Amino acid sequence: MLLIFLCLFPMALAQDEYTFDTKYVEIPVNHFTFTDNSTFQLKYLVNDTYFGQNGTIFIYTGNEGEIEMVTQNSGFIFEIASQFNALIVFAEHRYYGKSLPFGNQSYASPEYMGSLSSTQALRDFVYLINELQKLYAKDTDVKKIPAIALGGSYGGMLAAWLKIKYPDSVIGALASSAPIWMFKDQNPCDSLYTIISDDFETLGSTKCRDTIAKSWEIIRTFTQDEAGKKKLADSWKLCSTFETDTITSWLSVIYTVLAQTNYPYPADYVVPLPANPVQEFCKILDTLNSDDANDLVTTFGDALQVYTNYTGSTECNNFQAKESQRVADYVWGFQACTEMIMPICSTDADMFENSEFDFEAYSNDCFETYGVRPRSEEVPITEYGDKDLSTANNIIFSNGLQDPWSGFGVTDVLSGNVAVVSMADGAHISDLRAGNDQDPDSVKQARLIEIYHFQQWLDEYYQSGK
Amino acid sequence: MLLIFLCLFPMALAQDEYTFDTKYVEIPVNHFTFTDNSTFQLKYLVNDTYFGQNGTIFIYTGNEGEIEMVTQNSGFIFEIASQFNALIVFAEHRYYGKSLPFGNQSYASPEYMGSLSSTQALRDFVYLINELQKLYAKDTDVKKIPAIALGGSYGGMLAAWLKIKYPDSVIGALASSAPIWMFKDQNPCDSLYTIISDDFETLGSTKCRDTIAKSWEIIRTFTQDEAGKKKLADSWKLCSTFETDTITSWLSVIYTVLAQTNYPYPADYVVPLPANPVQEFCKILDTLNSDDANDLVTTFGDALQVYTNYTGSTECNNFQAKESQRVADYVWGFQACTEMIMPICSTDADMFENSEFDFEAYSNDCFETYGVRPRSEEVPITEYGDKDLSTANNIIFSNGLQDPWSGFGVTDVLSGNVAVVSMADGAHISDLRAGNDQDPDSVKQARLIEIYHFQQWLDEYYQSGK
Repeated sequence: MLLIFLCLFPMALAQDEYTFDTKYVEIPVNHFTFTDNSTFQLKYLVNDTYFGQNGTIFIYTGNEGEIEMVTQNSGFIFEIASQFNALIVFAEHRYYGKSLPFGNQSYASPEYMGSLSSTQALRDFVYLINELQKLYAKDTDVKKIPAIALGGSYGGMLAAWLKIKYPDSVIGALASSAPIWMFKDQNPCDSLYTIISDDFETLGSTKCRDTIAKSWEIIRTFTQDEAGKKKLADSWKLCSTFETDTITSWLSVIYTVLAQTNYPYPADYVVPLPANPVQEFCKILDTLNSDDANDLVTTFGDALQVYTNYTGSTECNNFQAKESQRVADYVWGFQACTEMIMPICSTDADMFENSEFDFEAYSNDCFETYGVRPRSEEVPITEYGDKDLSTANNIIFSNGLQDPWSGFGVTDVLSGNVAVVSMADGAHISDLRAGNDQDPDSVKQARLIEIYHFQQWLDEYYQSGK
Repeated sequence: MLLIFLCLFPMALAQDEYTFDTKYVEIPVNHFTFTDNSTFQLKYLVNDTYFGQNGTIFIYTGNEGEIEMVTQNSGFIFEIASQFNALIVFAEHRYYGKSLPFGNQSYASPEYMGSLSSTQALRDFVYLINELQKLYAKDTDVKKIPAIALGGSYGGMLAAWLKIKYPDSVIGALASSAPIWMFKDQNPCDSLYTIISDDFETLGSTKCRDTIAKSWEIIRTFTQDEAGKKKLADSWKLCSTFETDTITSWLSVIYTVLAQTNYPYPADYVVPLPANPVQEFCKILDTLNSDDANDLVTTFGDALQVYTNYTGSTECNNFQAKESQRVADYVWGFQACTEMIMPICSTDADMFENSEFDFEAYSNDCFETYGVRPRSEEVPITEYGDKDLSTANNIIFSNGLQDPWSGFGVTDVLSGNVAVVSMADGAHISDLRAGNDQDPDSVKQARLIEIYHFQQWLDEYYQSGK
């Protein structure tokens, strides 16, 4: 089951660089039906240090994970808060973290889990924005405090959709690395794996890419008997025994993460990684200079340390995700099985093992895991529209072009009042992260363009005398 | 309880001037949650006589009632279908007519009734449009047949919201007499009754308006004892005994309907009426030339015949609605108690008895009748936004300025790519009705402007080569 690839967002918690008050808002479980009047507590983090006259609300539309994880990778928002007199708010997405509509029972069955959807989450954010506008009205002269939505990855999709679906809830939105066009027929399904492969070739080397491409068969051969499995487990310092598909999936995730978070400085997004981890990985892999299968496995074991043991403190490599990550993956999987149906595939043209996107098989996997099936592959397009942004306005779509997810993002201006910011040397949500001396110019420029637009939106709002 | 005033749409069926095939589409009961995968059959009427190359789908977004009622009052759509090679489709609104998600149980409790909402209905229409585009693709060369939404009254609100919420589902929308700004603080709550009173004064006479204004107290005096009640019942040919509030509500509805459907030709919208029924009513009422209470009651009885007995075949006046109308009122009342919260009031400035809009009392009435309360008065604004159309595009808002509902409509161009068409002498959905020699110029011109926009949208669409 491919679902493991679909969870875009990190669960690793970096140091607490930014401080917050943790608050809750009471919200209907079901905004669009009235079968009951259940409510739940949606968590949000707030920092009002910089909030003041002619200010704004920076509302981060939370991802598929605990909201605290996001704050540590969104330093840009903190860095610009003072210049915009901004209230900083990070809203958690329902069904993640502490925002559980049915408490411990929230994942118990479709009956409880069914109220998880992006459409409900968007309305949660609108509701929260309204509440914040009332709550902070006393601190300002303005009738309605203008809000700006920000988000990265799935959170960026939500920021864009918020502006599209609830155009007067926010005056603008920054959708960073938001793959809003990854649904049926919107882009080639191999876009993700093609870009990863290109990254390994252009940032690493052709040899590196080719070694990975030919490794799958050799690894599978090793896993056919116990001796081979033991050799692999020892060489790679694995913590436990494994199934073949677990290991190949694990490798695919590693390559995805390395490419996605290939920042020019050490970072802790999904896991702690050195600067330029793709280059580091390939540097080691490229030391391989024999055709011997054992040598290949050993060299891969060394290269994998870039991913598994940057801190040097890893005793063995656990290819299974942490509990918190597993929960988030499970919950996101439900979304992927109901509304976020993302056809992802790989072909001969990339360095991954071939895999088709077979909707029927996908649907069967969904039913087995969650007791639900996608109603159709077209659900997300029916809800959010196809590749037509002619009526969108005040949305910035930014993408690091080295980010695999940029293959499903908005990187061309086609129509509408939207800005497209492409960072040639950027990775996943490079611009949302705190500024770093090592940032390439394209990332630095992206932030300046974003600041420019925020200022334009706010000037326009305040000049209109609303 | 004021809910009786809120049902905007007619239930009277005129002759079958237009023919259709009746079809059904299977649709999820709940688009936004995944608690179950129930589906139901949504009814739609279709006429493909005129459909052809470079054509369009005219999709009427159905009102709060059986869809057949709407077709007979939307002759404009038939009249222009051939010039646009249009497929004519009238989609029924879920929970009305035959489109019952839970069959006979649909109104049994909030558990069943809860899936009734405009947000669900809009998504039904998007779903249907997609299905129609696939179904009729074989008859045309175009990749995706462009659709245009049309609707009047609540159906007009839905047409506008469809274009706003699902901008690429239709290339444009005609929202005729759509009071999309009738929610909390969007307009004075007495707008409706003020315009009715003005109509009676300017179309009838000041005397007529004043007679009505002073009648309430006299009528209430009559209803204080059995003798008075009998006198009233005899004089007004009522079919049965009554409560005082029933009679005053009935009168309010009559005045509303007379003003709303004050067409310059005989029509059968809510009930069969002569041309210019406000004038006809006032002509009779103005024959009153004494201050005697009995005379007043008798003259009202005569004037009411304009409303109750235009056909001359009414034996007695039934102030209770027909069964089908009562069902529709009940269902609409649920919407008014959950999401369509419309503060309507009357004051000394109009000819009606004073009535405040008291949200708490309203909420209590709702709970008593339906077992639900509005979550807040702001629900419709949270969902559909406030009076900001800056991101709307290709929507025509047309209003007859004599129509009481125009007080809650879009009659000023403020922003966005929307067209405002005001018919100075028009009534409720005058433009959507079949053309009539007696139509005032403003109505005739409105239709021309609408045709012009439809053509523009279609030319633009086909020239873009989609």
